[in-house]
Amino acid sequence: MDSCVTAAIANQTHQLALLHVSYGQRTEKRERRAFDEIADFYGVRERISVRFDVFRQIGGSALTDADVAVPESGEAVGAADAAIPVTYVPFRNAHFLSAAVSWAEVIGANAIFIGAVAEDSSGYPDCRPEYYRAFENVIREGTRPETRIEIATPVIAMRKSEIVRRGLELGAPLERTWSCYQFEDEACGVCDSCRLRLRAFAESGAADPIAYRVAGQARVAR
Amino acid sequence: MDSCVTAAIANQTHQLALLHVSYGQRTEKRERRAFDEIADFYGVRERISVRFDVFRQIGGSALTDADVAVPESGEAVGAADAAIPVTYVPFRNAHFLSAAVSWAEVIGANAIFIGAVAEDSSGYPDCRPEYYRAFENVIREGTRPETRIEIATPVIAMRKSEIVRRGLELGAPLERTWSCYQFEDEACGVCDSCRLRLRAFAESGAADPIAYRVAGQARVAR
Repeated sequence: MDSCVTAAIANQTHQLALLHVSYGQRTEKRERRAFDEIADFYGVRERISVRFDVFRQIGGSALTDADVAVPESGEAVGAADAAIPVTYVPFRNAHFLSAAVSWAEVIGANAIFIGAVAEDSSGYPDCRPEYYRAFENVIREGTRPETRIEIATPVIAMRKSEIVRRGLELGAPLERTWSCYQFEDEACGVCDSCRLRLRAFAESGAADPIAYRVAGQARVAR
Repeated sequence: MDSCVTAAIANQTHQLALLHVSYGQRTEKRERRAFDEIADFYGVRERISVRFDVFRQIGGSALTDADVAVPESGEAVGAADAAIPVTYVPFRNAHFLSAAVSWAEVIGANAIFIGAVAEDSSGYPDCRPEYYRAFENVIREGTRPETRIEIATPVIAMRKSEIVRRGLELGAPLERTWSCYQFEDEACGVCDSCRLRLRAFAESGAADPIAYRVAGQARVAR
């Protein structure tokens, strides 16, 4: 959802080229389908899908390690001061950004948009603005001298409910997005990601257009 | 060779865990074999080999794009002020470092050693010290608060001939290393990487223990 609304925002000022990453997350097939459907919606031909096997190999996260359960306790929801949850994938966004920079340098793109969200998120260290400023410095130091690539994080300071509202304003295809950490057919409604999404829709006053396995989760998540 | 000597240096003060990356380079099978043989030499059980398909997908480099020829002109040899050569893989080392950081965070490693060489190299932007300082900042910003990981580049200021000498001093298994960009059975002796290596051995006064397709390249490369 964050990526989709970020694409909708980028689409207002830039010509889109869309990057998808499969990294061994439980729902990678469903996320790939969502990516293609969103790219189709915006009529984007310039798209690539890359695969990282490093996360599955190193383990350590509930998202990529079958031995670590996806939490359903809601521990990360609204707990900005809590410990980093087990769904944290170590240094994940650096891999995404590295892929984006490599591709941007080849196709001559001048900006990378990423749907990172600082607050109202799960406290992952690589979702904070300081992190992206530091990464821009790495781009400056680590690419050809003539390369100029900025990192844009248009939703980083938004609450999830604002992201929903902004997406609806821009006509973003939220019905084509996928957030659930656990399932690929219907969303579970109880993992941290589903709970954050359901709460966001509830707060924004709009109905979530996707199907949930457990009815009435919007109320539970509040 | 640079990685092997870097491992030899790291081995003096640290317990090794070795990371190999296949990224679609022409000689990836041969490099993987070299990695395993070097890891065996140092008796390292903690090793992983990861695969990135992003570079082959985006193209743009002679190392990973079959449509771009590997240069044999020696254009990069000793030409510090020359343009970045076609063997440059865009932002490659960021992918390597990201994999290393993710793994380091999981296993609790406190340092990442990488065999980058600034001078006497090919002028790649991601082989300069400034780049690694910038990346350390990204690590600080993008990992768990308690995580402390430094990037060590012990050979970055050495000439290739010094790297050879240092490797010989430390008893590094240089006969198990692979440098050729083109071939996997015998080294070509004429690509930029072979030329740099041969010149380094010639300057160090030692014989290169690996086999070359074309005899007498050491003299040609000078």
